[in-house]
Amino acid sequence: MEGTYQMPFQSVAMWEKRLGTPIPGSHVFVAEHEGRVVGSAGLFPFGSSPRLRHQMGFGISVHPELQGQGVGHALLTAVTSLADDYLGLERVVLEVYVDNDRARALYERFGFVHEGTQRMVALRRGTYVDGHQMARLRPR
Amino acid sequence: MEGTYQMPFQSVAMWEKRLGTPIPGSHVFVAEHEGRVVGSAGLFPFGSSPRLRHQMGFGISVHPELQGQGVGHALLTAVTSLADDYLGLERVVLEVYVDNDRARALYERFGFVHEGTQRMVALRRGTYVDGHQMARLRPR
Repeated sequence: MEGTYQMPFQSVAMWEKRLGTPIPGSHVFVAEHEGRVVGSAGLFPFGSSPRLRHQMGFGISVHPELQGQGVGHALLTAVTSLADDYLGLERVVLEVYVDNDRARALYERFGFVHEGTQRMVALRRGTYVDGHQMARLRPR
Repeated sequence: MEGTYQMPFQSVAMWEKRLGTPIPGSHVFVAEHEGRVVGSAGLFPFGSSPRLRHQMGFGISVHPELQGQGVGHALLTAVTSLADDYLGLERVVLEVYVDNDRARALYERFGFVHEGTQRMVALRRGTYVDGHQMARLRPR
């Protein structure tokens, strides 16, 4: 959970429920390695307004021991294909800690562009830290 | 609704419910003028995560015929007082269309700072338009 905005110490049951029964309108993927879930990614709606439904939020996490080995790349390939080819999303939005250079570089390879920096956006190890907001528009 | 991300053609009953029974954790104000509601503003939680609950989203609307007459100023005075003095929020976030200079100037007078520009963030009169994200940190 180090690089995410998620809470630590969550129950297995909570995560089974979140991954198994996603919130309505969202799309969740998991990455498996040797029979174990080693990462997940998803698209999440911004409320129900028709004026905002051309866009979704993106979140991803990869097991710390398997980072840098293509899990994130595989998840992003699946998610961006779904977004472009089947959902027709105009815009996908994500947030990333300002010091997470590896994640940011990965997002840029998939067409995400830095749009702004949010100050004190999340609590991490007892300190409010800044996050970048990035977005990817549908390729034309 | 011109300057907001809200839908037009909403029922009176929907707005009575939204203003009368706000979503849990939110705080909603209305401005009255000669017995009529001429504006509203509110603070809205970003989900339930403890890592994000130091911040809230801000939204405001003022009747078109009464804009520029202090209604927004009065609503922002009330909302920022609540945020600083009673909620202890570290961060309040809002979004504003890039061409809404008057609203942006008002927000800046209350300490909101531009943090980024979101491309194609909302549908307005049939076109996807950009919005600025602004945030106000708690005065020290």
